[in-house]
Amino acid sequence: MNKKAVVLVNLGTPEAPTTVKVREYLETFLSDRRVIKMPPALWQPILQTMILPHRPQKSAKLYQQIWTKDGSPLLLYAKTQQKLLQKRLPNYRVEIAMSYSHPRISETMDKLLQDGIDDITVLPLYPQYSGTTVGSIFDEVSDYFRGTDKIVDLHFIHSFYQEPAYIDYYAQKIRQRLQETPVDALLFSYHGLPKSYATDGDPYPQECRETTELIMQRVGNVKYFQTFQSKFGPGEWLKPATDTTLKGLPHRGYKKIMVIAPSFVADCLETLQELEIENKGYFMTHGGEQFIYLPPFNGDPQFADLLAELVAKKS
Amino acid sequence: MNKKAVVLVNLGTPEAPTTVKVREYLETFLSDRRVIKMPPALWQPILQTMILPHRPQKSAKLYQQIWTKDGSPLLLYAKTQQKLLQKRLPNYRVEIAMSYSHPRISETMDKLLQDGIDDITVLPLYPQYSGTTVGSIFDEVSDYFRGTDKIVDLHFIHSFYQEPAYIDYYAQKIRQRLQETPVDALLFSYHGLPKSYATDGDPYPQECRETTELIMQRVGNVKYFQTFQSKFGPGEWLKPATDTTLKGLPHRGYKKIMVIAPSFVADCLETLQELEIENKGYFMTHGGEQFIYLPPFNGDPQFADLLAELVAKKS
Repeated sequence: MNKKAVVLVNLGTPEAPTTVKVREYLETFLSDRRVIKMPPALWQPILQTMILPHRPQKSAKLYQQIWTKDGSPLLLYAKTQQKLLQKRLPNYRVEIAMSYSHPRISETMDKLLQDGIDDITVLPLYPQYSGTTVGSIFDEVSDYFRGTDKIVDLHFIHSFYQEPAYIDYYAQKIRQRLQETPVDALLFSYHGLPKSYATDGDPYPQECRETTELIMQRVGNVKYFQTFQSKFGPGEWLKPATDTTLKGLPHRGYKKIMVIAPSFVADCLETLQELEIENKGYFMTHGGEQFIYLPPFNGDPQFADLLAELVAKKS
Repeated sequence: MNKKAVVLVNLGTPEAPTTVKVREYLETFLSDRRVIKMPPALWQPILQTMILPHRPQKSAKLYQQIWTKDGSPLLLYAKTQQKLLQKRLPNYRVEIAMSYSHPRISETMDKLLQDGIDDITVLPLYPQYSGTTVGSIFDEVSDYFRGTDKIVDLHFIHSFYQEPAYIDYYAQKIRQRLQETPVDALLFSYHGLPKSYATDGDPYPQECRETTELIMQRVGNVKYFQTFQSKFGPGEWLKPATDTTLKGLPHRGYKKIMVIAPSFVADCLETLQELEIENKGYFMTHGGEQFIYLPPFNGDPQFADLLAELVAKKS
């Protein structure tokens, strides 16, 4: 009989909000050639001499603002979703894996193969495809199996930005929240990407646009903006930027806003710290009156329903 | 809406049974590092100076014995199965690809992506998994997508050696043929593999053994042997060898035999020439009286049923 597994893959997280652990995590993350496309001979000296000596300390302080008593929110939510999905898929073994922290993709694969699993569905926890995230997971999974004698049936899911269950979830949450607290506008903030990656063919910005449009078709007639956040490094990134936009909105008359981050399936540094603390600060100090942050799925059982549906359709 | 495709992948074939075309084909095939694991620095001089100057001419003569007026049997059967499977899967686009001849895997992928396909099931036409065949296809498919911005949902099927529809097909054909013409023994001849590949972990010999046993459980109480054919090069290959076994069987009292080649889904040089001409010759000149060759699926619509079932279960 087939022994099947689903592996939920997300980015990863430092093991602790300390300079040492954040440095370890950032070095792994920023050495991925899908993430930083500069040739390593150019990039590694910059990373080692200009970034790793300073950024981990700064970053660790930000992680401390969002850390829970049980650890990193991203990992906690991944584990909750794993348990919830496991209940919905009794014929599958459900595991998690992280691109840049433990359990690494190779560690999870080792475990599954040792247990005789012969059918693996890899489900990256990114609704929109980007080479920097989903593509990088594909490379790591295929690296794992290339040249080995232990290949299994493999299913690789590349995105779910337009899945009705995903769109409906957001549309419903937004409508519900708007009934409780009307706002002047919605702001969809997606994780950003260097502009050149998109010019070179990464379909990410288009998938983000389609997600926003599909959600808004169901939300109805409300003013909305779409922006990109989390710019890193000196190059040009996708625009408009979340921070610049938020600083300008109050002056344009949008003083009460609701912020949605549909490219994240769980809260993490980029939402809890960057959106809810940093960007909320920009907005409020520039004349904003109300900043409502609508969290992503996190531990919501409805997300496990969505994942179960995806697996049923695509594995 | 999803636009889905199934790609049936087989080994390939020379474009024509001529020395030039066979040389071209053999050079591609024998340069695959999954097929010949020797380091290229050692292997390429051997290939270029000892094999390619002589073998293509010899091999072309063998291909001439099996060539049809419409071309290579392997390719013709692949095209027939493509058409039959297409009728059974109206929601998929069905294509073929060859590891070492046209349409190459990359050519077929290019075509599918250009047409906006975003869900591809790769179905290697090898019932038993081996790194040299299915593994090599996996490497080529993952090479195609590694580092690109054009990833799709991918499903990779690694074997079907134990699929009930596959086993039942052979069991039924063998029983039927035995009723018409009883024989002294059955001989299951599988394509061989260097013994070291199996020692290093290739599960191929075990999957062959399981296929034979599952078929024989349904065929019932008939004497049978299992062998490996198509040895190439000086090293030790899996044993017992088909040719040695066939030469010895008449003296052991097995003068009427039926030969089955379950590792091939369609007739090709290894079955039509090596089994039906060369090995039949060995058997008959060593005292054999009747040599019945039971062909693989070829253009049988039942194979398309089996493939459709596999796709439904595994994509």
